[in-house]
Amino acid sequence: MNFGVIGYGYWGPNIVRNLMTLEGSQVCAIADLSPTARARAQKAYPGVTVTPNAAEVITSPEIDAIAVISPVWTHYELAKAALENGKHVFVEKPFTSTAAQGEELINLALRKNLKIMVDHTFLFTGAVRRIAQLIDQGELGSLYYYDSTRVNLGLFQHDINVLWDLAPHDLSIMDYLIKANPEGVVATGEGHLNGHEDVAYMTIYFPDRVIAHINVNWLSPVKVRTTLIGGEKRMLVWNDLEADEKVKIYDKGVQITNQEGVYKLLVNYRSGDMWSPQLEQVEALQQELSYFVDCVSAGKEPFNNGPAGLRVVKMLEAASQSLSKKGSLVYL
Amino acid sequence: MNFGVIGYGYWGPNIVRNLMTLEGSQVCAIADLSPTARARAQKAYPGVTVTPNAAEVITSPEIDAIAVISPVWTHYELAKAALENGKHVFVEKPFTSTAAQGEELINLALRKNLKIMVDHTFLFTGAVRRIAQLIDQGELGSLYYYDSTRVNLGLFQHDINVLWDLAPHDLSIMDYLIKANPEGVVATGEGHLNGHEDVAYMTIYFPDRVIAHINVNWLSPVKVRTTLIGGEKRMLVWNDLEADEKVKIYDKGVQITNQEGVYKLLVNYRSGDMWSPQLEQVEALQQELSYFVDCVSAGKEPFNNGPAGLRVVKMLEAASQSLSKKGSLVYL
Amino acid sequence: MNFGVIGYGYWGPNIVRNLMTLEGSQVCAIADLSPTARARAQKAYPGVTVTPNAAEVITSPEIDAIAVISPVWTHYELAKAALENGKHVFVEKPFTSTAAQGEELINLALRKNLKIMVDHTFLFTGAVRRIAQLIDQGELGSLYYYDSTRVNLGLFQHDINVLWDLAPHDLSIMDYLIKANPEGVVATGEGHLNGHEDVAYMTIYFPDRVIAHINVNWLSPVKVRTTLIGGEKRMLVWNDLEADEKVKIYDKGVQITNQEGVYKLLVNYRSGDMWSPQLEQVEALQQELSYFVDCVSAGKEPFNNGPAGLRVVKMLEAASQSLSKKGSLVYL
Amino acid sequence: MNFGVIGYGYWGPNIVRNLMTLEGSQVCAIADLSPTARARAQKAYPGVTVTPNAAEVITSPEIDAIAVISPVWTHYELAKAALENGKHVFVEKPFTSTAAQGEELINLALRKNLKIMVDHTFLFTGAVRRIAQLIDQGELGSLYYYDSTRVNLGLFQHDINVLWDLAPHDLSIMDYLIKANPEGVVATGEGHLNGHEDVAYMTIYFPDRVIAHINVNWLSPVKVRTTLIGGEKRMLVWNDLEADEKVKIYDKGVQITNQEGVYKLLVNYRSGDMWSPQLEQVEALQQELSYFVDCVSAGKEPFNNGPAGLRVVKMLEAASQSLSKKGSLVYL
Repeated sequence: MNFGVIGYGYWGPNIVRNLMTLEGSQVCAIADLSPTARARAQKAYPGVTVTPNAAEVITSPEIDAIAVISPVWTHYELAKAALENGKHVFVEKPFTSTAAQGEELINLALRKNLKIMVDHTFLFTGAVRRIAQLIDQGELGSLYYYDSTRVNLGLFQHDINVLWDLAPHDLSIMDYLIKANPEGVVATGEGHLNGHEDVAYMTIYFPDRVIAHINVNWLSPVKVRTTLIGGEKRMLVWNDLEADEKVKIYDKGVQITNQEGVYKLLVNYRSGDMWSPQLEQVEALQQELSYFVDCVSAGKEPFNNGPAGLRVVKMLEAASQSLSKKGSLVYL
Repeated sequence: MNFGVIGYGYWGPNIVRNLMTLEGSQVCAIADLSPTARARAQKAYPGVTVTPNAAEVITSPEIDAIAVISPVWTHYELAKAALENGKHVFVEKPFTSTAAQGEELINLALRKNLKIMVDHTFLFTGAVRRIAQLIDQGELGSLYYYDSTRVNLGLFQHDINVLWDLAPHDLSIMDYLIKANPEGVVATGEGHLNGHEDVAYMTIYFPDRVIAHINVNWLSPVKVRTTLIGGEKRMLVWNDLEADEKVKIYDKGVQITNQEGVYKLLVNYRSGDMWSPQLEQVEALQQELSYFVDCVSAGKEPFNNGPAGLRVVKMLEAASQSLSKKGSLVYL
Repeated sequence: MNFGVIGYGYWGPNIVRNLMTLEGSQVCAIADLSPTARARAQKAYPGVTVTPNAAEVITSPEIDAIAVISPVWTHYELAKAALENGKHVFVEKPFTSTAAQGEELINLALRKNLKIMVDHTFLFTGAVRRIAQLIDQGELGSLYYYDSTRVNLGLFQHDINVLWDLAPHDLSIMDYLIKANPEGVVATGEGHLNGHEDVAYMTIYFPDRVIAHINVNWLSPVKVRTTLIGGEKRMLVWNDLEADEKVKIYDKGVQITNQEGVYKLLVNYRSGDMWSPQLEQVEALQQELSYFVDCVSAGKEPFNNGPAGLRVVKMLEAASQSLSKKGSLVYL
Repeated sequence: MNFGVIGYGYWGPNIVRNLMTLEGSQVCAIADLSPTARARAQKAYPGVTVTPNAAEVITSPEIDAIAVISPVWTHYELAKAALENGKHVFVEKPFTSTAAQGEELINLALRKNLKIMVDHTFLFTGAVRRIAQLIDQGELGSLYYYDSTRVNLGLFQHDINVLWDLAPHDLSIMDYLIKANPEGVVATGEGHLNGHEDVAYMTIYFPDRVIAHINVNWLSPVKVRTTLIGGEKRMLVWNDLEADEKVKIYDKGVQITNQEGVYKLLVNYRSGDMWSPQLEQVEALQQELSYFVDCVSAGKEPFNNGPAGLRVVKMLEAASQSLSKKGSLVYL
């Protein structure tokens, strides 16, 4: 399977490196507007066509799939052109700048019988796979809440705010784990430097009293990547910065055991062992790209497909709307 | 100075123990409705009057001040009776159940020339005093954000939700450090067990783009007590669970150094040393009660007075209103 | 059961407090040479006889047992007098200053049919009990090593070095867990301030290639209380400074799986889950004193008896001998 | 400057990668006995000569310097041949298997006017450079002790024990920081799997009561890389596994302030702020290789030269001797 890659900035080289080592795939062409990016690409891969012209890559007849690794505001045009030229699309998250764009791309791919995969890399990590398995097996019981903090010092983006930059990770993981349709979104935040929010908070309401919260911040002196997930039976902490023991499951719980009238709730705390499962030690991006090649080859729809990307974009759109009113419930 | 203490449950014994060892103060009477609480009090302090009747304590002529350490819904009635009987009042946080009650007590104390102190104990810890000093000396520069997480397994309260239980700590600290009038509040949350919210999030907007956020949760498998404070010049992390090194100041920052048109923001990261100041090793509650005795003796208004307690209650009221709409900006 | 307590310095008050709350025991008399210690004791326990004269306590006919909580060089004389007066003895660790003294006390108690218990408090903690259970049940397999670090800033003792001050904790725990007779001891160290070693290291050789090591230090800027225990099947880490999760068991191991000649060792690493058992939340000292009362009442020999204390003293004596030669194997 | 590299196993590829990117240096030939290692090398560097024959590389006239990155028992023969062929030598640690070999190589290099550098990479890390600077500037005062723990699960070596494998790191750092001649060594340890010690402890005595201790272990369930350094004025902790804040300096100390006779030592504890300096973010190996090229070009003797490597080998030899007697002081 032959790939063309559009965008060789921060993330593009990882895509190319993995596609190059993957059995059954290779990169034939790389496009980037920046001469220094092109020089880096050409030096690392002397045998690959490197060009400033994305259209040249997208229309090349030898190419089967396009990886769109460019800024979000370019996704729609590039992916659309790729699909129109009969190419499968692997596209960076967030999928598109608007839900309307995402819907159009999904329909186009359907009509053309092509695959879209949105690069929600975290879904392929050992940690998220293991957590998903635990939830699916009922180890946590009914979910109560999902609470993620993703903060560090860094202001990489000039065209989008911190929610569009960092929250797609959490939204895609949350969507994958909770497996329910969110009802509404509330977002608050503030920008201190260039007009875009650099500190933001997002609450997502789900049916059955499940609530999710995401704390993202470009102005934190320390890096935090911690998610708490509370369930009726057990609770877990996922700290992605731990070298080992990233996921810890606590045999703890709270239950109302006896309720004699509204003023006599008997709250029962349960506290037991903690357990940290060994996780698969695989490079998530390699797993994901290999899965993309499999899906395309077998004509199988990936679970991180266009609609999965669209669900994230819809939540981001709702969050932007809520943010603009300084926080207010926006129904989905 | 003679004290009467109303309430000998979880916190009351700490109040009594500290008043007993404090130079110049003693406890003459303790009231509690629970026979077991009274038995504990009488055994520990054989010389003190112990009674189920709060009125007996409040009207006792030998008593100068009443410490109200009972549930929040009783604060107003007890404090009012104490003031009407000419006693100074030390009252547990949150000050009152409603802002109207708080205002009435403040006015009553003014008319009677009596002092009210609200037990915002954290303001007397070495950590908060040091942070306040750092901010006042301009070490952090203009503040950007205040972000606190206060979660653990515990559902102590049957009459109030997690915001009214845990957030008063953060709100009083935030109020003390930021020293500005908040403009509005957004709160989201969910209750899973007894109808009260057990997971809640609160955003407070201040002038000049300062934003505060509070994450409180009774259903967390791990205990977290961490506050991030970001400023233009420096940022700090306060982890109250660290035995040593509770406060760490990072010589880190982000600045827009040159702005040639809106598309050419040059973001400049600065990263330097970290520094953890030694903190005073004092029992905060002892400092606070000693300060109360001083204020009453000297006729000095404490900084954690009725109006300070009222500011917290107003934010909690606004948060409750916002929560009931599943998040929406409530102006203060 | 009536107790006399000799020594009301740092640890004595904890002994008295626990004996006072324990069902079936009470403290009748406390002796201490320091007037301020006596004043503290009398204020806290107005009904107890407080005296500078240990002999008065030891010979009192109403007293059944003597708790010797004074400096180590006084243990022998005080315990001997107590036994000669027909009292059971609870004595602070280390048991005695020399092995000869310990042996004499053990024989005296035997002849008098009295009990001696040495205060190896750590053996009654939830952590050590759980680790002992794990080892006894074969969860770790054959032991490979025991490696403890116990360091902090503190130079409490003027009469003994850091080994005699801190290592008795580790030696008693090691003795309790390994359940084998050590063959020899090597100790190294250095003193920088008052002639006594303030930094010291001790290796203990056991049969079957089991090795133990203890690192004690009064000049460390940070407090460390960590023990690694390696076994053929599993390994564990006990960090006593963790609030929760003090003990972590790792399903990890190394095995030589196939050995074709000396140059073809196939080393096989096994890495699996980590698991942290919930520990009993009891005050160790209360458990220990309750066990002492039980043993005396039932005429039962405690496991932390004179011989257990003597084993620790013998290892300390050997260590002192090795230290004086700057390290050299001293057989036991 | 043209390099030949002997050994392309675990560490060799890092050497080659750095030499390839370094201004003014390139790798012309790589030798390795393993066909798979050679295949990896050839694939990564198609333009470089790859051979099973080390002699071919060592005698090549176009090569200026040989990097010996093979097992320790091969160092002497390969380095000797290189020097005899007029090549400068960069050699992996430990320098040689015996002190006699090291001395011979040093003399040979002197006669031939060639440079030897021993790969003590840690000396080029930001952490060690900063610690050296702190010590040199007197920030710690006179040194009291150096105490390092370097443990993990791993049994990489079949020909040497854990001391020869892991301790050279600590010994070279200690030698660099303490800058004094050690007087004697005591080593203890045990082997559980293949006859070589897999757990070992080493004490090194220096003049003026300075003591060093090294704890190395291949059978630890957790990875630890922590060094405590205590001085008269300040103390520091270097935790190499921390992402940030690797070095923490504590303004803590202990002093005998007044000494009225031997029984009246007044110990004075001082406790102040902690401070974590920002460290240089450079790849240590790149710095070291660049320094090697500079030294050779300028005819300058590197500080990590043959004699520096020899000092480490002498301590390892003494440790082996001590180990064989189960711990006993071996003078240096």
